[in-house]
Amino acid sequence: MRIAYVVPGPMSKGPMGASEMRRREALLNGWAFAGTEVVVVDVPDGPASIESAYEEAMSVPATVERIMACQRDGFDAAIIGCFGDPGLEAARELATIPVIGPCEASLLLAAGLGHKFSVLTIFDSLIAGQEMLAVRAGVRDKLASVRATNIPVLDLMKDPGATKKRLVDVARACVEEDRADAFLFGCMTMSFLDMGDEVSAAVGAPAVNAGRAALKHAEMLVSMGLSHSKKAYPLPPKMAAGQSFETLRVA
Amino acid sequence: MRIAYVVPGPMSKGPMGASEMRRREALLNGWAFAGTEVVVVDVPDGPASIESAYEEAMSVPATVERIMACQRDGFDAAIIGCFGDPGLEAARELATIPVIGPCEASLLLAAGLGHKFSVLTIFDSLIAGQEMLAVRAGVRDKLASVRATNIPVLDLMKDPGATKKRLVDVARACVEEDRADAFLFGCMTMSFLDMGDEVSAAVGAPAVNAGRAALKHAEMLVSMGLSHSKKAYPLPPKMAAGQSFETLRVA
Amino acid sequence: MRIAYVVPGPMSKGPMGASEMRRREALLNGWAFAGTEVVVVDVPDGPASIESAYEEAMSVPATVERIMACQRDGFDAAIIGCFGDPGLEAARELATIPVIGPCEASLLLAAGLGHKFSVLTIFDSLIAGQEMLAVRAGVRDKLASVRATNIPVLDLMKDPGATKKRLVDVARACVEEDRADAFLFGCMTMSFLDMGDEVSAAVGAPAVNAGRAALKHAEMLVSMGLSHSKKAYPLPPKMAAGQSFETLRVA
Amino acid sequence: MRIAYVVPGPMSKGPMGASEMRRREALLNGWAFAGTEVVVVDVPDGPASIESAYEEAMSVPATVERIMACQRDGFDAAIIGCFGDPGLEAARELATIPVIGPCEASLLLAAGLGHKFSVLTIFDSLIAGQEMLAVRAGVRDKLASVRATNIPVLDLMKDPGATKKRLVDVARACVEEDRADAFLFGCMTMSFLDMGDEVSAAVGAPAVNAGRAALKHAEMLVSMGLSHSKKAYPLPPKMAAGQSFETLRVA
Amino acid sequence: MRIAYVVPGPMSKGPMGASEMRRREALLNGWAFAGTEVVVVDVPDGPASIESAYEEAMSVPATVERIMACQRDGFDAAIIGCFGDPGLEAARELATIPVIGPCEASLLLAAGLGHKFSVLTIFDSLIAGQEMLAVRAGVRDKLASVRATNIPVLDLMKDPGATKKRLVDVARACVEEDRADAFLFGCMTMSFLDMGDEVSAAVGAPAVNAGRAALKHAEMLVSMGLSHSKKAYPLPPKMAAGQSFETLRVA
Amino acid sequence: MRIAYVVPGPMSKGPMGASEMRRREALLNGWAFAGTEVVVVDVPDGPASIESAYEEAMSVPATVERIMACQRDGFDAAIIGCFGDPGLEAARELATIPVIGPCEASLLLAAGLGHKFSVLTIFDSLIAGQEMLAVRAGVRDKLASVRATNIPVLDLMKDPGATKKRLVDVARACVEEDRADAFLFGCMTMSFLDMGDEVSAAVGAPAVNAGRAALKHAEMLVSMGLSHSKKAYPLPPKMAAGQSFETLRVA
Repeated sequence: MRIAYVVPGPMSKGPMGASEMRRREALLNGWAFAGTEVVVVDVPDGPASIESAYEEAMSVPATVERIMACQRDGFDAAIIGCFGDPGLEAARELATIPVIGPCEASLLLAAGLGHKFSVLTIFDSLIAGQEMLAVRAGVRDKLASVRATNIPVLDLMKDPGATKKRLVDVARACVEEDRADAFLFGCMTMSFLDMGDEVSAAVGAPAVNAGRAALKHAEMLVSMGLSHSKKAYPLPPKMAAGQSFETLRVA
Repeated sequence: MRIAYVVPGPMSKGPMGASEMRRREALLNGWAFAGTEVVVVDVPDGPASIESAYEEAMSVPATVERIMACQRDGFDAAIIGCFGDPGLEAARELATIPVIGPCEASLLLAAGLGHKFSVLTIFDSLIAGQEMLAVRAGVRDKLASVRATNIPVLDLMKDPGATKKRLVDVARACVEEDRADAFLFGCMTMSFLDMGDEVSAAVGAPAVNAGRAALKHAEMLVSMGLSHSKKAYPLPPKMAAGQSFETLRVA
Repeated sequence: MRIAYVVPGPMSKGPMGASEMRRREALLNGWAFAGTEVVVVDVPDGPASIESAYEEAMSVPATVERIMACQRDGFDAAIIGCFGDPGLEAARELATIPVIGPCEASLLLAAGLGHKFSVLTIFDSLIAGQEMLAVRAGVRDKLASVRATNIPVLDLMKDPGATKKRLVDVARACVEEDRADAFLFGCMTMSFLDMGDEVSAAVGAPAVNAGRAALKHAEMLVSMGLSHSKKAYPLPPKMAAGQSFETLRVA
Repeated sequence: MRIAYVVPGPMSKGPMGASEMRRREALLNGWAFAGTEVVVVDVPDGPASIESAYEEAMSVPATVERIMACQRDGFDAAIIGCFGDPGLEAARELATIPVIGPCEASLLLAAGLGHKFSVLTIFDSLIAGQEMLAVRAGVRDKLASVRATNIPVLDLMKDPGATKKRLVDVARACVEEDRADAFLFGCMTMSFLDMGDEVSAAVGAPAVNAGRAALKHAEMLVSMGLSHSKKAYPLPPKMAAGQSFETLRVA
Repeated sequence: MRIAYVVPGPMSKGPMGASEMRRREALLNGWAFAGTEVVVVDVPDGPASIESAYEEAMSVPATVERIMACQRDGFDAAIIGCFGDPGLEAARELATIPVIGPCEASLLLAAGLGHKFSVLTIFDSLIAGQEMLAVRAGVRDKLASVRATNIPVLDLMKDPGATKKRLVDVARACVEEDRADAFLFGCMTMSFLDMGDEVSAAVGAPAVNAGRAALKHAEMLVSMGLSHSKKAYPLPPKMAAGQSFETLRVA
Repeated sequence: MRIAYVVPGPMSKGPMGASEMRRREALLNGWAFAGTEVVVVDVPDGPASIESAYEEAMSVPATVERIMACQRDGFDAAIIGCFGDPGLEAARELATIPVIGPCEASLLLAAGLGHKFSVLTIFDSLIAGQEMLAVRAGVRDKLASVRATNIPVLDLMKDPGATKKRLVDVARACVEEDRADAFLFGCMTMSFLDMGDEVSAAVGAPAVNAGRAALKHAEMLVSMGLSHSKKAYPLPPKMAAGQSFETLRVA
C-alpha cells in the first residue's frame, strides 16, 4: 500500500528543509510493515510550524487540497503531518481514502495501554486545545494530563541532549504526579526525534510516537478495507448537489 | 461603541449580495442599545455559504485578517457572522478587542433561560459539529437536542412561509419530544429571517436569535471593559517573540 | 427600562445600612446602558448576610414576595442581590419578568472569556455549594476551581487594602495553580468593592464583577424581549388551577 | 432508637389531617426494626403540599426549626417528610443528629439494585428538579429516567385503583422503554399508598418505597454511630463565632 | 434473619485462620440489629488475600458456588467478604437472595454523608480499579480520591499501632488535601481492625467500616423485602432455557 | 511475529469443535500482514460460550494460565478470544507480551471512524455490561447505542441467511435511529461469520470485525515495540515480593 504523509506547511522552504522531509520519510518507511511505501510531501505555502490556532487555521486549505491530490494520485491513505490534526474533518468530507490525524490515532492507541495517559505538548498555551482534541477523540476520561516542554518546535532539534532531558523530566512528572500509565509525544517534530525508547526507559512507562502511531493506524485501516464513515463526514451539500470542488470558493 | 459584524465569506459577490448585508446591518442597528453602531462587512473571497467543515476551514484565514483590520480601524468589538464561529480561537489570539462567536454567545444565553435548550441547524450532517460546539462552550449538559430543518442556507429566504412552517415544526419537536425549554436558530441566515417571535409564540417557548444574541454579548463585554482572556488565547509564540503577523505565512 | 435589585435580607436594618444600598444603586446606575434605571430594595426580615445554606433558605420567602411586588410595580426585570441566587427557581415560577441570578449570569459570562474560570468565594464551607451552582448553570466543565478568601462578608469592607491583597493572592492561585483564564467575585459585597480592574491588572486575567454581570444580563434579556422559559419554570400547579398566591401558605 | 419524621407542612391543618399523620406513623413503626420508635410531626404553617420550587422554599424555615426541636427533644435522627428533601443542607448545618432526605436515601438504595433506575414523580414540571437531585446525590449516571403520573398529590388517595393503574403504566414505561432495572416512588404520599409490592409484581422489577428507605437509612446510620459530616455541613460561621440561632434572623 | 458472610478465599487454611473468621463473626453479630444472625464461611481454595486483578479473578468461581450453597441453606442474604466485590454480578445472576458487595454498599453509604468521600486502599496499584468500582456503583462524582496505605493485607494486623498511625495519616490527607468530607476503609481486613472511631476522631470526619456497612445494607434489603433486580442480573440464558448450573462448565 | 488467539473456553470439546478453531485460524492468517502467524488455541475446561457474567468469570483462571503458557512458548502477543475481554486485566498483570481484548481494540478502532458508533451484542441482558466496557475503554462518549440481535451465540451459524438479515436490521436501527456512524460486531462468533462487508454495504456505514481489529491491534503494538503499561497492570504484589505464580492459589 502507498501512504502519503502530508506536512501542512511549506517545510521544504523553511529552516528544516527538504532534507528533514527525506529523513522523516526514511523513518516512516523503516517503521512500516513490509509492502507499505510512505511518501512525505508538503504544501506550497503556510506556516513554518504550527504553535497556535491561527497558524493551524492558516494551514488547512492548502493541506486539504494536497490530500485530494494524493487521492487522485492513487495513494491508499493520507496522514496529516501535524499533531493538531489540522483539517481532519474537512479532508474527510472530501476524501474517500482514510485520512489519519496523528493526534487522534495516538490518543486511541495510548488509551489501550493503561488506565490513563498524558500528552507532552510544546507550550502551556496549547494545553486547553489538546484537552479539546481528547474530547473530540472521545477519550477525555483517559487523559491524565497535558504538560508542556516549553521548547519551540523549531528549537527541538537544536540541542538533542537538552531536549531529551526535558522530555524525561516532563514525562516523569506525568507518571509520578498525574498518575499517567503511558505518555505520548504531542508534536510531530518531537516524535520524529525518535527518542521514545530512551525516554520510556528512563521514566518506566510506555511512550507513544505519534508519527509511528499514525502510520500503524493508516496501515490498519487500509489492511481492513475500512475508511472513515461518510455518515460522519459527508460530502459538502453543494458538491452532493453537483457543484465542483473548485467552485466552492467564490472570489 | 462601534461593532463590526464580519461575514466570513464574500456575501457581496454572491446571490444574497450587498443588499442583504445592508438589510442585516439595519436589523442589527435596530436591535442595538442607544449609542451602538454596527457595521456589516464581508471578505474578498471564500465560500458562498458554510454548510460543511471544509467550507468553514476555507473561510477562516480571510476572516481573521478582516477582524484584524477592524481592530486597526478602531472598532470596539467584532462579531463573526456565522453560527459555526469560524476562526474564533485564531482571531482571539491575534485581537485584543472582544471577538464574539454567535454560537458561543447564543448557547450561553440560552443556557440561562431554562434547564435545557435545543439548536435548530441546517443539515443533519451538522448535528455532531453543533454538539461539539456545545462542548467547547461548556454547556453540553444543557443541550436537549440539535435538529435540522434540512433547507439549504441559500434557500431559506426563498419561501418564507414554508421556512417558517418548517421552523415551527422542528422547534415544536425539540420542545415536546426532547424536553427543550427554549431553542435557538443555529444559522445566521435563519436568525436574520427575524421570525423568532412568531415561532416562539407558535411553540410556546423562548426563541434565541443568534445574531441578536451576539450583538448583545458584544455590547455587554464592551460596556464592562472586558475582553477574552489572553491567558486562554495568547499571541502566537512567534509573534510574542517579535515576528510580524505577515511573516507567519511562508510561501 | 427599570430594573429592581432585590437584596435578600434586611440590609437597611443591618450594619451596612441604607447608605450601602444607595452606594450600590449608584454603582449599578453608573454601569448601566443609557436608558436603564436601577433601584435597590431590600426585604423586611431575614439574615444579615448569607454565609450558609440555612441563612440562604431563611431569605427566600421574603425575597420571592419582594420580587413579585417589583413585578406588580412595573419593573422590567429583577436581580436577586446574592451570589447564591437564593430563590431563583421559586421566583421564576411566579414571575413573568426576567429574574436574574448574579451567580448564573456571571458564570455564563465568564464561560465565554476563555477555557476555564475560577470563582472566589467567602468560606471553604461554600466551595461545594458553588460547584453545585456551576452544575445547575450547566458550565461545570468550565470551572477551574473555587477558592475562598475566608474573610467574612461583613468584614470585607473593613480594611479594603487587606481585602484587595487577599483577593489578588487567591485570584493568582486560581490562574497559576488551577489554570483559570478568568475569575469572578463570588459574593455581591466582594463585587461591589469595585476592585475588579485592580485585581485583574495584578493577576493578568479578566475579572468578572457579579453585580455588573447580572445587570448586563438583565439589560440583554429585556432588550431582546426575552424572559426565562415558562416550560422550565411553570406556575405552581395549584395556582395554575386557580388558587391565589396568598392561599398557598396554610397556617 | 427514636426517629422523628417531620412533615414539612401543616398536614394536621390540611385535607389529609392528623389521621393521615397517624396512619403514616403506624406504617413506619410497622416497617421499623425491633427497638425503633418513629414519631410523625408536622409544622405550624407552610404549604398544603409541595409541587413547585416556591412551595418547597416556603416550607424550609419552619421545617429546620422543627428538626432542631426534635434534636433538643432527644430524637436520634430526623427524616424530612417530602421527596424533594427540602431544607436537607440547612438542617444538616445546624443538627448533629442524622438528618435524612427520602430522595437521597432512596436514590442511593435504588442505585444498588441494578444498573439503572427510574423515578416516578407527580408532574412533568418536576422532572428537571428530580434530575438535579440525582446529581446532588451523586448517582445521576444511574438514573434511567424520571416520568410523571400527572396526578396531583392531594388527589393520589382519592381513587386508589386508578392511581395504582397509573403507577403500573408509568413504571412499566420506565422499565420497558427507558431500560430501568428498578424504580422508586418519588413522592411521600405516593410511597405511603403502600402499593409497592403490587406495582412491582405487575411490572417485574423492584419498587422502592421512599418513606421506608428513609427509615432504613436512618436506622442504619444510628446503628453505626454515624451522622452527616460536619466538614460538609458546618455550623453557619456566625454561630461558630458565637452568635445564637435565634439572632441569625434580623427583623 | 440469617446472613452469610462469604470470605472469597480459604481463610481457614491461611495465616489468619479460623480464629480470625470467628473474630469477624463476633464483630458482625455485635453490629447487627436484634434478630439478625451472621455466619462467616470461606471457600475451599483460592487466594490467600486479594491484592490484584488476577487473585480476584481466581476467587470468583468458588465464591459464587458458595453463595449458591448459602441460598440453598436458607440464608436470607449473602455478603461477599472482599472490598473488590469479586463475583458480585455473577452471583446476582444466579441468586435470588440479596448478594451484597461491601464496596458498593459502603460507597453508597458514604455518598450520603457529605459532598465527597475518599477510599483508603492497600496498594497504589489498586487505585484505578477502585475508581472503576465507583463508576460501577454510580457514584464516581462523589469520589474525592483513593489513597493507599501501602501495607500488605496480611501485615495490617501485625502492628496495630503502626497501622492506625498510617490510617490516620492517609485519611487526613484525603480530608485536608482532597477535600473529602468522609472516608471509608477499602479493605475488609482494614475494616475489621475496628479502628474507625479512633481514626475518625483523629481526623475529624466520619469513617465508614465496609464490613459493617455491608451488613446494614443486607439487613435493610431483607427488612424491606427487596433484592437486586433480575432485569439487571438475569439468569444465564442457557439456564433460563433449561440447562442446569452444573452443566454450564464443559470439561 | 507469532500471535496466539486464546479461546476462553473448551471450544474443541464443544459443538463448534476443533474444525471451527481451524476455520478461525485460517481467517485470521488471511487477514494478517505478511510475516504474521496466528495460532488459535483453547483451554481445557470452562463455558461452552459466554453469555453471562457467571460464564465469563468461570472462564478467566484457565484463560490466564493459557496466556502465560503462550508467553513461555515465545508468542509475541496474545488475543483473548471473547468480546467480553475476560481476564484482560488479570492477564496483563502477569504477562509482559501485549494481551489484546477484542472489545477494547475494536471500540478504540471504531471511535476513530466517526462521531459515534454502536455495538451489536447477543442478548439484551448484555447491554449494560457492554456500556461498562465502553467506560473502561474510555470511549463511552462515542457510544451511540448497544443493540442486541437476541440470537444465542451457538445458533448464529445455524442459518446464516437469517442471521445476516437480523444483523442488517439491527445495524440499520443503530445508524438511523441512534445516529451511529459505524458499528461493530460485539461477539467473536458474530465477527467470524465474516459478513461485515455485506452488512456494511446494506446499511451504508463501516462495520468493524472485532476479531480482525484485535489482530491488527496486536500487530500494531508488536510492530511498535509496545506493550501494556506495567504501571497500570503491575505484577501481583506477592509475586513482586518473590512468591511464585503457582503458590498464589491456596488449597
